[in-house]
Amino acid sequence: MTSISIEETEQFLPAFNADGLIPCVAVDDKSGAVLMMAWMNLEALQKTIESGIAHYWSRSRQELWKKGATSGALQSVVSAKIDCDQDTVLLAVTLQKPQQTCHTGRNTCFYRTIVPDSDSTSGLRLEAHNTD
Amino acid sequence: MTSISIEETEQFLPAFNADGLIPCVAVDDKSGAVLMMAWMNLEALQKTIESGIAHYWSRSRQELWKKGATSGALQSVVSAKIDCDQDTVLLAVTLQKPQQTCHTGRNTCFYRTIVPDSDSTSGLRLEAHNTD
Repeated sequence: MTSISIEETEQFLPAFNADGLIPCVAVDDKSGAVLMMAWMNLEALQKTIESGIAHYWSRSRQELWKKGATSGALQSVVSAKIDCDQDTVLLAVTLQKPQQTCHTGRNTCFYRTIVPDSDSTSGLRLEAHNTD
Repeated sequence: MTSISIEETEQFLPAFNADGLIPCVAVDDKSGAVLMMAWMNLEALQKTIESGIAHYWSRSRQELWKKGATSGALQSVVSAKIDCDQDTVLLAVTLQKPQQTCHTGRNTCFYRTIVPDSDSTSGLRLEAHNTD
């Protein structure tokens, strides 16, 4: 690392966590809607940039995950950015099959709102809402 | 947990990591632009919902972090959502001081694009771009 700070360098110095992973947020390039959050290792990120198709690391299956490889719900990458301290990736993607963005068959993973609930231990509950 | 799956329940059952934290993505409610990613513990999330002002957990300072408490760059919460497997929070916020969203004095933390670079070890480098 030179004297240029992590915030200003053009060196790619990703801050992977102890498991070698970095969080990645995917947004719809057209609508800007946040679609999902998943994790990448270096290989997934390299393959994403090289191929232009989003690749993640499946923590449950412990393997490289080319999203949509079986379903055809591929994510084509329009841009890949990294944040100031290089510990989060942001992908802007276009979708082949928007309804298969979430494994529940929705066009986003974020379909429930967190609301106050004095009856629950945490003081919070979820409120489901329709998505397109 | 009842027989309703984690994806469909209205129970708030956040999957905090081993440090008791959950990643949180903040987007600008007006433009939809992704602003930053930070972490929350349960207290930060509760305070965010109760007060309507975004609170995070500062991993570097190991303390509750009301963003903008000193600078005035508060984030007012329009909505707070959680994803299918309840391991990521998404805030839509309005900004008092957009230029102080990032500690570098930019209106987003995502101001560098990841591009191929055959000369670097990782095969990648960053390309800075202007933000508003």
